[in-house]
Amino acid sequence: MKTLTVVKIGGRLLEGEADSRTVLQLFAQIPAPKILIHGGGKKATELSIQLGLTPNIKNGRRITDQATLDITTMVYAGLINKKIVSRLQQLKCNALGLSGADGNLILSNKRPIQEIDYGYVGDIQQVNVPLLVELLKLNITPVFCAITHDEHGQLLNTNADTIAATVASSLSDYYTVQLKICLDKNGVLLYPDDDNSTIDILTHEAYLSALENDSISGGMIPKLENAFKAKNSNVHQVMLCGIDGLKEEKGTTICL
Amino acid sequence: MKTLTVVKIGGRLLEGEADSRTVLQLFAQIPAPKILIHGGGKKATELSIQLGLTPNIKNGRRITDQATLDITTMVYAGLINKKIVSRLQQLKCNALGLSGADGNLILSNKRPIQEIDYGYVGDIQQVNVPLLVELLKLNITPVFCAITHDEHGQLLNTNADTIAATVASSLSDYYTVQLKICLDKNGVLLYPDDDNSTIDILTHEAYLSALENDSISGGMIPKLENAFKAKNSNVHQVMLCGIDGLKEEKGTTICL
Repeated sequence: MKTLTVVKIGGRLLEGEADSRTVLQLFAQIPAPKILIHGGGKKATELSIQLGLTPNIKNGRRITDQATLDITTMVYAGLINKKIVSRLQQLKCNALGLSGADGNLILSNKRPIQEIDYGYVGDIQQVNVPLLVELLKLNITPVFCAITHDEHGQLLNTNADTIAATVASSLSDYYTVQLKICLDKNGVLLYPDDDNSTIDILTHEAYLSALENDSISGGMIPKLENAFKAKNSNVHQVMLCGIDGLKEEKGTTICL
Repeated sequence: MKTLTVVKIGGRLLEGEADSRTVLQLFAQIPAPKILIHGGGKKATELSIQLGLTPNIKNGRRITDQATLDITTMVYAGLINKKIVSRLQQLKCNALGLSGADGNLILSNKRPIQEIDYGYVGDIQQVNVPLLVELLKLNITPVFCAITHDEHGQLLNTNADTIAATVASSLSDYYTVQLKICLDKNGVLLYPDDDNSTIDILTHEAYLSALENDSISGGMIPKLENAFKAKNSNVHQVMLCGIDGLKEEKGTTICL
């Protein structure tokens, strides 16, 4: 089977002009087939504030009311996605920007209201694998933003790490999939304050102990849950890495 | 050859919730292959004002500085495009939203500065016909917003009527193309104030006389220039129509 590289880059890596250029240059150099998934939280927060709204983030997840959904759709699917695509095109990478609504590529359910009402937030139900494979065969590089839909006309704000992990595992019957989740650190850190303490290999057992002694916490937990889930769903290689991880095998490799 | 229907809907038809639903329902009922091109000017103007910018429109064209380009990219490629796509998906039309940057589908040049500096405005240079044909073969309905790119990493605001006419004519070697440019009137009016004075057939000769006696003016002129150009470039049928023109042959048919 061919190797497919699925890369997720967070909003932070896209903020600075210089960083953003470097990331996209490195991504452009990865051999196709490949898929990019991007976040963009900070710019959405900025626009919310400019428009007089107060962003509401609980447990690292954005509470998405109608106005917030419109803003995230504008920023993720519009501004950030199209800027990335036009830059990748400049770098001769045949990028094509997508939300989950496009071609019904990622179908979600609105998250049921439990303790927290997250609003218009989607939990992924299904990836349109046949169409995604056809697009890859056309030598297209899909660039997904973190917006999906429910097939009933509703767009849904969806976690970009989850999209990356789900897209990667859904294609594992067709490709040898390599998933790289890019962070602003060089991988998972043994000591959160020491940037040089990158863990080379993280087993599920080590992850569970790290959870217990609180050396892994906050936003890293859902990231690692997604990473282990992908590894558990036949993704060949799952890595959490920094920008350098896009050009060499440098970062934290996930093991079961 | 198969018939391909290319429909352009203006921003005004998408403004009201009811109108917008009707237009998309009628579009969804048109047999595939088909392509939709949409505008969205008013919403971009609203967002500009909310963000404290003063929209600058000269000769019916938006002067597009960097901030305005960001806003149009957010509104056209993000909010409006994805709302249309999710609604068409709900109506079982396999829509996929696109800017000209995506898949390098529409390549433009930044308009040279002459009397007016339009800013980041694009004049179309080339349509990626092979990719567009492949997408149509996959039973995808492309939905284009009015943003293109220059292949050097620059997005460009581009007139939606021109995109529609150029896409229609570029596909005329592969399909029998029918171009429908939807207006908020039922066609070209003989008397601008009389909504019942729709001209059934407009020849180029009649158009030139109408120009001379000022019965056609303003924004209708570039629309008709595009329409005649398309008709002149082997588009089988070119029509300016109202919403009803999407379900029946009702409107102004362009003749050379």
